[in-house]
Amino acid sequence: MMGPDVKLRDFSQDHRALALNTATLGHNLEGHGAGWSPEQVIDACAERGFGAIAWWRREIGERAIEIGERMRSTGLEVCGLCRSPFLVGPLAPVERQVIMDDFKASIDMAQALGSSCLTLVVGGVIENSHSQRESLNEVAQIVAEMAPYSYKAGVKLALEPLNPVYGGNRSCLVTVRDAVDLCDQIDHPAVAIAIDVYHVWWDLLLGESLLEAGADRIAGYHLCDWLADTTDVLLDRGMMGDGVADLKHLRAQVEAAGYDGYCEVEIFSANNWWKRDPAEVLDICVERFRSVC
Amino acid sequence: MMGPDVKLRDFSQDHRALALNTATLGHNLEGHGAGWSPEQVIDACAERGFGAIAWWRREIGERAIEIGERMRSTGLEVCGLCRSPFLVGPLAPVERQVIMDDFKASIDMAQALGSSCLTLVVGGVIENSHSQRESLNEVAQIVAEMAPYSYKAGVKLALEPLNPVYGGNRSCLVTVRDAVDLCDQIDHPAVAIAIDVYHVWWDLLLGESLLEAGADRIAGYHLCDWLADTTDVLLDRGMMGDGVADLKHLRAQVEAAGYDGYCEVEIFSANNWWKRDPAEVLDICVERFRSVC
Repeated sequence: MMGPDVKLRDFSQDHRALALNTATLGHNLEGHGAGWSPEQVIDACAERGFGAIAWWRREIGERAIEIGERMRSTGLEVCGLCRSPFLVGPLAPVERQVIMDDFKASIDMAQALGSSCLTLVVGGVIENSHSQRESLNEVAQIVAEMAPYSYKAGVKLALEPLNPVYGGNRSCLVTVRDAVDLCDQIDHPAVAIAIDVYHVWWDLLLGESLLEAGADRIAGYHLCDWLADTTDVLLDRGMMGDGVADLKHLRAQVEAAGYDGYCEVEIFSANNWWKRDPAEVLDICVERFRSVC
Repeated sequence: MMGPDVKLRDFSQDHRALALNTATLGHNLEGHGAGWSPEQVIDACAERGFGAIAWWRREIGERAIEIGERMRSTGLEVCGLCRSPFLVGPLAPVERQVIMDDFKASIDMAQALGSSCLTLVVGGVIENSHSQRESLNEVAQIVAEMAPYSYKAGVKLALEPLNPVYGGNRSCLVTVRDAVDLCDQIDHPAVAIAIDVYHVWWDLLLGESLLEAGADRIAGYHLCDWLADTTDVLLDRGMMGDGVADLKHLRAQVEAAGYDGYCEVEIFSANNWWKRDPAEVLDICVERFRSVC
């Protein structure tokens, strides 16, 4: 296995690989974070030398083309859009057609923004099935059906395995190992995997699974930290360096598999980071990215 | 892989393999459950045809020999004692000697009770180490040091991998795969693994890991269910059948590895099961064990 420091990209003097996921600013919604407009977020990231931003659909609304152009005019890339509807499980729409229509709409928005990637959160175990396997098979069918459409749109579908704590309701896909198997099963070039520290930090098989995935199937790497005393598994993520994740070792494994894309900070934190001045939050993201990631 | 129904023990007419972990009754402490005495718990389990009980140290106090004798006189076995102190991480005692003394005291109590097994919850990632691997190495050292003592006492040390959601504070050991590796590393016949539905239900590598563990290293199988809408990861476990875990498939994998011991119901449930009449809770455990496990 590769040592943690071999070949690792050096961000200490150059943080152009840093990206912001706007969840870190509370999605800029009223009552969460400062309620900045997309333009304010873009300008604040550009000023600080971020390389890219990943957006949430609720922030974009009908303004995808306009926001995409604004991004490019300031030298920033759109590295992602969050997210597909839940495809299965208790939180997914009941009607399959509603799921497919919304899935398509999310791909359309990613294309209009000029985003290379759409994050898929697949949904929990199908109610009354008691079967994670059956649920994953259903996910495979739905994603396989949509993959050609997404391929034509130039948008990668990034399957994101979530921490097993979400297995019941948000994602029956809970490990990178299973995500690689799902990619194999779907077998389409539009389908890849997003790796998020929050979801994978505990997985000692990560490096092995990533090597099997290969660079072409790693569509994103998301940063935050796992707080030892996590009080809420949805909205209490830590800033890099404040938790127990071995961040440099995790990145070493992602890069050993050939990934050389953005590192996207995504911190849901209702009681800490969302309450702070977003300018301060962005400054701290830069500082921590250069020092501990 | 073995199909879920092949060779599975049939409990529909015979539930002597059913065991109670007293956590299911709120540890019988005041304010949790009905505050039954150990004698009341023993009699209620014996009446209902349970085969065994696993206790918590706080319920036993100085009465280990007496309670063990009472168990045997009613035909019940002591299948486990919860638990060792945390061995590493933020919740472990600071002084190594304090940990070792308490670890020894827990083995002594298990021996006095006549329990074949002591559950180990190893503790979270060592503070400021940011290294799950280093933390597991420390666990291996401590357990290896105590294993000969436990062997002489006739008590198996059951390493229990916990759900990854506890990785930061309660258990840097989070998968059965890692538990098998830890057993290999320690390499002592007193060291085995406890499998708990709550912690492993999501793990599609479980069957493979269990086969590698082998029957001699599976020291227990704990039942409950994972509720899709889990509201608290510590105290909101579900009764078997009320959640999303594939219980028969999980047991099939445990039995395919050669396990033929007790199935121990362990449900922490502050807002539901702990508030009910313990007699009703025990009746429902029997009914669900015979039908859905």
